[in-house]
Amino acid sequence: MNVTVRGQTRHYRTVTFDASANHVLLIEQRLLPHEFKIVAARDFHETALAIRDMVVRGAGAIGATAAYGLAQGVRAFRGTSLAGFARHVEIVFQTLKAARPTAVDPVNAMNDMRRLMARGESVAEQQALALAAAEEFANEDANHCREIGEHGAKLIRNGMRVLTHCNAGWLAFVDIGSATAPLYAAQAQGKRFHVFCDETRPRSQGATLTAWELAQQGVSHQIIADNAAGHLMQRGEIDLVIVGSDRTLGRTGEVANKIGTYTKAVLAKRHGIPFYVAIPLSTIDWNLKSGFDIPIEERHEHEVLGAWGITADPKAEKRNAKAGKRVYVRVANPSSGARNPGFDVTPAELITGIITPAGIFKPGELWKRRRQLGFSE
Amino acid sequence: MNVTVRGQTRHYRTVTFDASANHVLLIEQRLLPHEFKIVAARDFHETALAIRDMVVRGAGAIGATAAYGLAQGVRAFRGTSLAGFARHVEIVFQTLKAARPTAVDPVNAMNDMRRLMARGESVAEQQALALAAAEEFANEDANHCREIGEHGAKLIRNGMRVLTHCNAGWLAFVDIGSATAPLYAAQAQGKRFHVFCDETRPRSQGATLTAWELAQQGVSHQIIADNAAGHLMQRGEIDLVIVGSDRTLGRTGEVANKIGTYTKAVLAKRHGIPFYVAIPLSTIDWNLKSGFDIPIEERHEHEVLGAWGITADPKAEKRNAKAGKRVYVRVANPSSGARNPGFDVTPAELITGIITPAGIFKPGELWKRRRQLGFSE
Repeated sequence: MNVTVRGQTRHYRTVTFDASANHVLLIEQRLLPHEFKIVAARDFHETALAIRDMVVRGAGAIGATAAYGLAQGVRAFRGTSLAGFARHVEIVFQTLKAARPTAVDPVNAMNDMRRLMARGESVAEQQALALAAAEEFANEDANHCREIGEHGAKLIRNGMRVLTHCNAGWLAFVDIGSATAPLYAAQAQGKRFHVFCDETRPRSQGATLTAWELAQQGVSHQIIADNAAGHLMQRGEIDLVIVGSDRTLGRTGEVANKIGTYTKAVLAKRHGIPFYVAIPLSTIDWNLKSGFDIPIEERHEHEVLGAWGITADPKAEKRNAKAGKRVYVRVANPSSGARNPGFDVTPAELITGIITPAGIFKPGELWKRRRQLGFSE
Repeated sequence: MNVTVRGQTRHYRTVTFDASANHVLLIEQRLLPHEFKIVAARDFHETALAIRDMVVRGAGAIGATAAYGLAQGVRAFRGTSLAGFARHVEIVFQTLKAARPTAVDPVNAMNDMRRLMARGESVAEQQALALAAAEEFANEDANHCREIGEHGAKLIRNGMRVLTHCNAGWLAFVDIGSATAPLYAAQAQGKRFHVFCDETRPRSQGATLTAWELAQQGVSHQIIADNAAGHLMQRGEIDLVIVGSDRTLGRTGEVANKIGTYTKAVLAKRHGIPFYVAIPLSTIDWNLKSGFDIPIEERHEHEVLGAWGITADPKAEKRNAKAGKRVYVRVANPSSGARNPGFDVTPAELITGIITPAGIFKPGELWKRRRQLGFSE
């Protein structure tokens, strides 16, 4: 999507590949929203570190980064021995896989690539196929998001007020995003609407990443405390909710997503407000039989007990806020602890529809359409 | 309630009066939870400033502070002219009233005091009556909270997990608090239970004040992000919700309280979890006919866009967290704005009961029992 740096607006993807330098180029997401910077991972070890250390995050984005990282590592091989090359590929694969061991996208992307590479009859051919496959993976990720946007934009009418939670934006993918895709597509169609971004404590991805994204695209928006959406719904100030998902159960239509998503779905149901979940098909889990079987990560309590930000004058006009030093502040009582579940599960009955690249479906329809949606037994 | 300072535990009220020095003594609440300090307001002007600048906050606490401030100002009068004294009393009254113009407790407390003072036949008698009336007001506030605790403690059984929102604790009153009163009473009865404190963004009164209070009284508790309560309810980890209220409508049973209260009530209803509101009778509004008529204050956006805290090492063990400097950090994207409604309104159908000093009532019962509960036409 577009980013404006020192008055210059241009299009960026979260991850791209410099083939001549053999570098993976990444938006340094840990600096956002206070600084926009592209960093180069100069070999596959650096690319693995960038995944591990959260320079890049989000399912689609780390999938593409691992894919480019595999191509990068594969292309660095000097020699013609196919046996030696195979051993090298395995090292690169394991290094990138270990960078985020619980994520499925990097492993899926790299396995697909290895199948394609196997068609090459020489090291050079396999190296060329690796890069082509990585580019293909990144382009597909962006295309899937574009398709989500085309379907989802139909839900957005002029004057609507749309609530989002957390960041399922283009920063989490290669481009466009999932939950944000309908917004960007509707904007491109000339529709005017307003977005409320839940700040999404404890990690505040709504206040930082989603708000930054929307600001860069010029989408009208305001940040709200996670406590405020219920009140706004009660007063008739929210017309539509769109969120993303980390894992959607194909058998039940249940949706695991950032903590707080379930609460917004309960509120939306009470107020008769449509609640949509936007996902690429790769996040559908066709195996699990119940949302209660999804492990809910308990994260470190310091996330709840404090906040990261830049020191600033609270009353300063926001556009003039001087960037101070980025620090962690402990907000809470120092002798108290916290519970910090990272995700929650929203049952199908609270979900109006699931926006996919293949169209919008009721959550209960996923299983019936499983072959169309990529399920293989 | 008890506070432990450098190993010494003793009982404190939020506001007391030093009659020999003619000082109002206040817990400096703006330093909590990171520092506990008693400050002296040495004349009624300083007492008014302490109210205005939020050294003391909470309906009962500022009511008692204004009452003591009126006694303080009245006692500083030198002379015997009743006419001169009356003019002086009016100045003191207006000064204290102007310190927090929207609050009703200070004005109600001071009007009651002036009626009592009028029984005195000399300046000296009226001065003595003023102090007696202020002490009486403070004692009554504490007694009402004690009575709330006695009734509310019956709801708490061994092993329960109780959710609170914001701070309706003893810091908001003279002692004991409203929403916290049942907890402290149950603890005194030897019951064991666990409290989840909503952090209560954007001002984080749950993470700061309520957590500090509970830690000081040795009540088992954890802070959670406002997003987490829905998930905990879904997993059967919350048995009871108790909150306070800024204004409860006697005619409809609707409850205005800190933003996010309504959301917790909706979630509790869905999960069949009892939802109670603890209030002194003075917060019942017998006039308004609909919760939609309650003005909802829109507060400054910097509260949502950032957080106040002390700089700290995020991974440090909480008990060893060194107190750094208290600073404001901007968390959100610098070019984004915020909406910041301060309160919301919970309808009667979501409220299991209202815990008052006179007993626990269904919200719909308030109007029927209005004479018992202090309504006068």
